[in-house]
Amino acid sequence: MTTSERTINFTRGVPADEAFPAPELADCVTAVLRERRVQVLQYGPSAGFLPLREWVAAHHGVAVDQVLLGNGSLPFIDLLGWALLERGDSVLVESPTYDRTLTLLRRHGARVAGVPITGEGLDLDALEAAVRRVRPRLLYTIPDFQNPSGATATLANRRRVAELAAEHGFWILEDAPYRPLRYRGAEVRSLHELIPARTLHMSSFTKQISPGVRVGYLIGDARLVARLAKAAEDTYITPNLLGEAAVYEFCHRGLLEPQLERLRTLYRPRLEAACAAMRRCLPDAAWIEPDGGFFLSLTLSAGVRAEDLRARAAAAKLNLTDGRGFFPEPADGDRFLRLPFCALTPEEIGDGVQRLAEVVATLARRG
Amino acid sequence: MTTSERTINFTRGVPADEAFPAPELADCVTAVLRERRVQVLQYGPSAGFLPLREWVAAHHGVAVDQVLLGNGSLPFIDLLGWALLERGDSVLVESPTYDRTLTLLRRHGARVAGVPITGEGLDLDALEAAVRRVRPRLLYTIPDFQNPSGATATLANRRRVAELAAEHGFWILEDAPYRPLRYRGAEVRSLHELIPARTLHMSSFTKQISPGVRVGYLIGDARLVARLAKAAEDTYITPNLLGEAAVYEFCHRGLLEPQLERLRTLYRPRLEAACAAMRRCLPDAAWIEPDGGFFLSLTLSAGVRAEDLRARAAAAKLNLTDGRGFFPEPADGDRFLRLPFCALTPEEIGDGVQRLAEVVATLARRG
Repeated sequence: MTTSERTINFTRGVPADEAFPAPELADCVTAVLRERRVQVLQYGPSAGFLPLREWVAAHHGVAVDQVLLGNGSLPFIDLLGWALLERGDSVLVESPTYDRTLTLLRRHGARVAGVPITGEGLDLDALEAAVRRVRPRLLYTIPDFQNPSGATATLANRRRVAELAAEHGFWILEDAPYRPLRYRGAEVRSLHELIPARTLHMSSFTKQISPGVRVGYLIGDARLVARLAKAAEDTYITPNLLGEAAVYEFCHRGLLEPQLERLRTLYRPRLEAACAAMRRCLPDAAWIEPDGGFFLSLTLSAGVRAEDLRARAAAAKLNLTDGRGFFPEPADGDRFLRLPFCALTPEEIGDGVQRLAEVVATLARRG
Repeated sequence: MTTSERTINFTRGVPADEAFPAPELADCVTAVLRERRVQVLQYGPSAGFLPLREWVAAHHGVAVDQVLLGNGSLPFIDLLGWALLERGDSVLVESPTYDRTLTLLRRHGARVAGVPITGEGLDLDALEAAVRRVRPRLLYTIPDFQNPSGATATLANRRRVAELAAEHGFWILEDAPYRPLRYRGAEVRSLHELIPARTLHMSSFTKQISPGVRVGYLIGDARLVARLAKAAEDTYITPNLLGEAAVYEFCHRGLLEPQLERLRTLYRPRLEAACAAMRRCLPDAAWIEPDGGFFLSLTLSAGVRAEDLRARAAAAKLNLTDGRGFFPEPADGDRFLRLPFCALTPEEIGDGVQRLAEVVATLARRG
């Protein structure tokens, strides 16, 4: 066991505290409150602060009426539950997937089925079989640096997903909050670029600027965006214009790209530390090596249950998340571990993986 | 017809543009981003920015765990739909009531029944009969300067509502966003003060500071607040902390009471202009004279339908809202008109009521 007394948390996937551009945001809020006082402070459109919608539209090469802003991107899934899904509709998700999406889909009565994910994206044979079996209304997927696995879908994989959507007429909900945070390799075309007519592309400024501003966006078919905007109006009238205005001004001033470059410079060594520690401490582990984002994941050997491991890890001051919550069938996550690496220093990451390896070794010896 | 060429909108109940304290908010955001950078910009508790929860708790004399912050107050009704109501539960509302609440209650499958409201509050005989008939889970009421009628419940009326809640065990959802905006007369004790154990008291900073900051709050039973906070976490993880932090700093600096005094000074002459114009131009109308808030309402004489009147009014550059949306039974609103007076100057209000009277006179002559 390392001698460090500090608890290490491989738990929530949050940005590093040191990454927040607070003085720049203060300047941006001040400017936009001076220059667009009423537009920021009065009730506004439920689709969000128009200058930011325009900025996002230009950034993604779509029309303004294809852009919906919201209080983060998670709430769009709730809005889809009202505007698109009927109770009992089938929805396909990756297995594992983002746990909060599972919760929201089930809240709306969706029948959720999981499709295994590999290091190259969705298991295509399993996807095709599931599509034929459940006739999904929607496929929810995180193609870039997936939460929780860290996997990125290859271009060939995405092309096949797009073909299936076209052939079988389901919607693709592409959740892409980590996409700008690539630390190595070349960007892969998004599903929205491959099949814009069937794809709802979600992202947010949570990982790029700050969670606290609560600004996410969705891009897609203008008619569906209008229906979502109506559901948004029914739910909260207007999203938080102060945060959207701050983000708009930040982007308008050209501060986003330098901010992303700072984040990549901050997070790249953390990813490298995580990968190096995995190779050094857990050379036999089954894990996915990510090219960006927040997460690395591993699957423990048969016979070692993550639940036992978590209890022992906690005793060694290492906090791990219950992996079962990420799986549509929780039992599939018995041996799954997600390691978020962005909010830890390289040293903490190395210590954490070493503690993990030591606990795994103890359990394996007893097993 | 007045000679003014300007269209007058008696439509949405929004604050006056000139009422927004933009420079003060800019200072507040700047300060709080400097002093509480991570607390504002990182993910935070789903119940909201702790310093503002503490401020609200102290302001209302309740414990911090009885306070939930959210993105405005309307979303609390959606959260109640998930955390308190079962589909098919009965909910009583005032007739007329806030149209957006009706929409959200019905979205969640509530069986909504209306209880007529008078100038003194809920019609108590009708309320008691409805309580016995439908056995409500919840009564939604706006006791102060009601939207849309402008009525304020008397203390005796509130006491009887509280008694019925205690006797029959339903929750009271007291929506009180206009309560601090009293332009004459003395404050009446809130339902939350009369029966705290059964009351969820909602308010927001929308009318007090700005809609665009999107900050509302709910006060109530700590266990129910915890369930609502869980539903909030499932929906949006964290409310918009930037807006909450701005509002916190605004309140902490002692700026709220002077802001409210400015608003009262701005809006009082508008209410007086509205009442004077009603007396001058529509001396025979059935209308409720409000003591605060945003709205005055009237009921047209039998034989004059608001729908016909709205079409003619629009031709005379006077825009009116369809009153039927405020009624659980839309046909009950055929003759109902809501006049929001806060975002118009006294002169516009006088002109608007005069145009209204002229259109009413034309219709009455034809009728």
